[in-house]
Amino acid sequence: MNPRSERVDALCRSLPRLDWCVSSAELKRKSLDYYWFSPVLRRQLEGKLADAIVRPRNADELREIVAGCVRENVPLTMRGAGTGNYGQAIPLEGGVVIDMTACDQLRWLEQGVVRAQAGIKLGLLNELLAPHGWELRCMPSTYRMATLGGLFCGGFGGIGSITYGPLGCPGTVLGAQVMTVEAEPRILELRSPEVMQHAHTYGTNGIILELELALAPANDWHEYLLAFPAAEAAFACGQRVAHTPGLIKRETAVFAPAVATYFKKLAPHLGESEHPVIVVINSSNREALETLVAAADGRIAWHQSAALAKSTQHTLLEYCWNHTTLHALRSDRSLTYLQTTYEYGREREQLAAIDERAGGEVMNHLEFIRDETGRLICSGLPLVRFTTENRLQELIALHRDCGIRVKDPHVYTLEEGRHHGAMTPAGWDAKRRFDPGGLLNPGKLRIRTG
Amino acid sequence: MNPRSERVDALCRSLPRLDWCVSSAELKRKSLDYYWFSPVLRRQLEGKLADAIVRPRNADELREIVAGCVRENVPLTMRGAGTGNYGQAIPLEGGVVIDMTACDQLRWLEQGVVRAQAGIKLGLLNELLAPHGWELRCMPSTYRMATLGGLFCGGFGGIGSITYGPLGCPGTVLGAQVMTVEAEPRILELRSPEVMQHAHTYGTNGIILELELALAPANDWHEYLLAFPAAEAAFACGQRVAHTPGLIKRETAVFAPAVATYFKKLAPHLGESEHPVIVVINSSNREALETLVAAADGRIAWHQSAALAKSTQHTLLEYCWNHTTLHALRSDRSLTYLQTTYEYGREREQLAAIDERAGGEVMNHLEFIRDETGRLICSGLPLVRFTTENRLQELIALHRDCGIRVKDPHVYTLEEGRHHGAMTPAGWDAKRRFDPGGLLNPGKLRIRTG
Repeated sequence: MNPRSERVDALCRSLPRLDWCVSSAELKRKSLDYYWFSPVLRRQLEGKLADAIVRPRNADELREIVAGCVRENVPLTMRGAGTGNYGQAIPLEGGVVIDMTACDQLRWLEQGVVRAQAGIKLGLLNELLAPHGWELRCMPSTYRMATLGGLFCGGFGGIGSITYGPLGCPGTVLGAQVMTVEAEPRILELRSPEVMQHAHTYGTNGIILELELALAPANDWHEYLLAFPAAEAAFACGQRVAHTPGLIKRETAVFAPAVATYFKKLAPHLGESEHPVIVVINSSNREALETLVAAADGRIAWHQSAALAKSTQHTLLEYCWNHTTLHALRSDRSLTYLQTTYEYGREREQLAAIDERAGGEVMNHLEFIRDETGRLICSGLPLVRFTTENRLQELIALHRDCGIRVKDPHVYTLEEGRHHGAMTPAGWDAKRRFDPGGLLNPGKLRIRTG
Repeated sequence: MNPRSERVDALCRSLPRLDWCVSSAELKRKSLDYYWFSPVLRRQLEGKLADAIVRPRNADELREIVAGCVRENVPLTMRGAGTGNYGQAIPLEGGVVIDMTACDQLRWLEQGVVRAQAGIKLGLLNELLAPHGWELRCMPSTYRMATLGGLFCGGFGGIGSITYGPLGCPGTVLGAQVMTVEAEPRILELRSPEVMQHAHTYGTNGIILELELALAPANDWHEYLLAFPAAEAAFACGQRVAHTPGLIKRETAVFAPAVATYFKKLAPHLGESEHPVIVVINSSNREALETLVAAADGRIAWHQSAALAKSTQHTLLEYCWNHTTLHALRSDRSLTYLQTTYEYGREREQLAAIDERAGGEVMNHLEFIRDETGRLICSGLPLVRFTTENRLQELIALHRDCGIRVKDPHVYTLEEGRHHGAMTPAGWDAKRRFDPGGLLNPGKLRIRTG
């Protein structure tokens, strides 16, 4: 037993009423996330393990744990459902992983605004909102498991971002309750925009207890799998759906035919050379969609209502965003992926350039989202056939050479992953204020604090 | 009595049970619309008058009138509330004006889609929709009086178009019931996109009986009058509000300080040199708006909820779109206006160029709308100090010279007003199919039919 595990042991013993878990299977499961999407992170994060997992049932228990960690000088790492992809929830220097999933209460819902605890699952939250005529504006494809706090701290948006943009756009996250990591932890109420200093920081600059979000009106969604004879037609129709303001949209994704071969349940509905597009729109838009699809020589290959999807537990939403990657990796572990953003108006040209220069290795997967200026741009999660880390870097360079922006999903530090290589001064201020001792997952920030 | 009025007289006598009106005051009132916004149209359309007005109470009565007009070879002109601006409802060659305002039934409402008769007032329709959680996606500022059929045949959108685009965008108008002008009038059911051949044709290619529209979820709107120290800041904040996808918007308009001097009830809330912006957004967006306004050195000069606006009958919506023009013209009949569209990304530069070259004569009024590609562009309804028709044409040319598109609101034919100088072949097909005798307001199309 090393000195740190001894200190964790002392901490466990000092707080015996808490829901601790030290079984080695659970320790391993709850120390990891979807980092295995990246062969680079698989190598780098291999064997990283918490000394203990604790699952606080309320803010008081959480406060005891945090105070204890500070007292014992033990690192602590925040965790939702662990559906993130960059090792966000993996404790780099052991210590205690705090599993927030028991803090899952909906606090209040009023005039299209909800307040809930960070550990609530997004799918459950949506089910609680639905009878009141509301739903989340955006959520990841992992919404069944993923938590609200996880979305805020490690996510981006995804489904719904075609209309409401990323979660970080002003007007969606309204406030948060955040706990400091101090000998006597304080709970502070933050409002937007200050609260956004804590977004997408992997839980390294404070502990999110509650979040307050503006909602979207609930829609009667219908899911369509479309098929087109050519890449141009598929893209053009997807873009037209995305662009047209009269179509109420939740999701529009365009895939290379090769990607769809990994969609076991959908592949039988598609011809081998057909280019699939997934569209989720309001029920009233059926005829308008049919017109757009026919104009692009496409067809509706498969269709269902969201209500039916709910009853069968089979939804097209779970073929989009990183679920696309998940389907592919389940079939073929030699695959990995990139995160790309194409230049507005040059998407087809950039995609064609990649096809020409790395067609065998890169399989396109596009997602339409609204950017901060309201423009419908293309984000991508192309599948990549992995050979070596060097070749992966070459492919990233190739994308950049074509004018495509790449957010490298094969890095695990906060600065490299999301913050363009460096934290902002305001980000550092928040870090110093909420985690003065630098105990939140040390190593996750390249520059050490505390 | 000329031969035509004799034929109209015979028609009235042949259908005595109908709701005819031949009193000269009513004839005059119901032969006109808001054409008087234009001094050019005032001159051109002076004295145009119907021989009789009839107000059908249902489709059967309408059919009798139409059959009678065909039998007697009498022109007929369709009319909603007469809130259009291009003499759309003014009978150029007399005959019968058909006032549709008694055909005002809501047929059905289901899953966010409404079917209603053309004569229903938009304000009333919204009130009927509200208890079910729905509202119109877009409507003119004249919604209290304006009819659904009038919006479809002569309107564009307006309030709400910042989110849903113009009414004509695919996905909003789903279907229509249209009557032919024939000896035995037929009623045809059209679906989109075919139905769009009848949009914005001033009722010259068929008689709209019913419309089917996709709706928007009802929102808890709040109305803000913002004030900024400089034009750049006002525009930047208005644009930021328009662009940000996390703000749920119904209206964003930016005005020159001079325009606001015509807003009698609002002027006391504004400093003389302050640049006003009207924003109508969801209640949950208050804090996000406050942040954007503060960042642009602005202030919230006045604010109310839509619920309060409803009870006081004083709403900021009735300072936007052509209500801006109406307020100005009520104060000063020497004013008129233009309809402009600025180039995306060059708006400030183009506005500054007009300010520099015609600052004393042109007062800016911008409206943000979403175009068919989903981009937030600026449409304008600048006030113009009218001197001569020649000078008005020079000012139009000046705008075009600065790269600003102008839809000339000082013309009354369909082709000049809306159809880029010529009808499309599909438009002509619809005209020939629904009005083979060319009886619908002859003269409204430059090229004669029938």
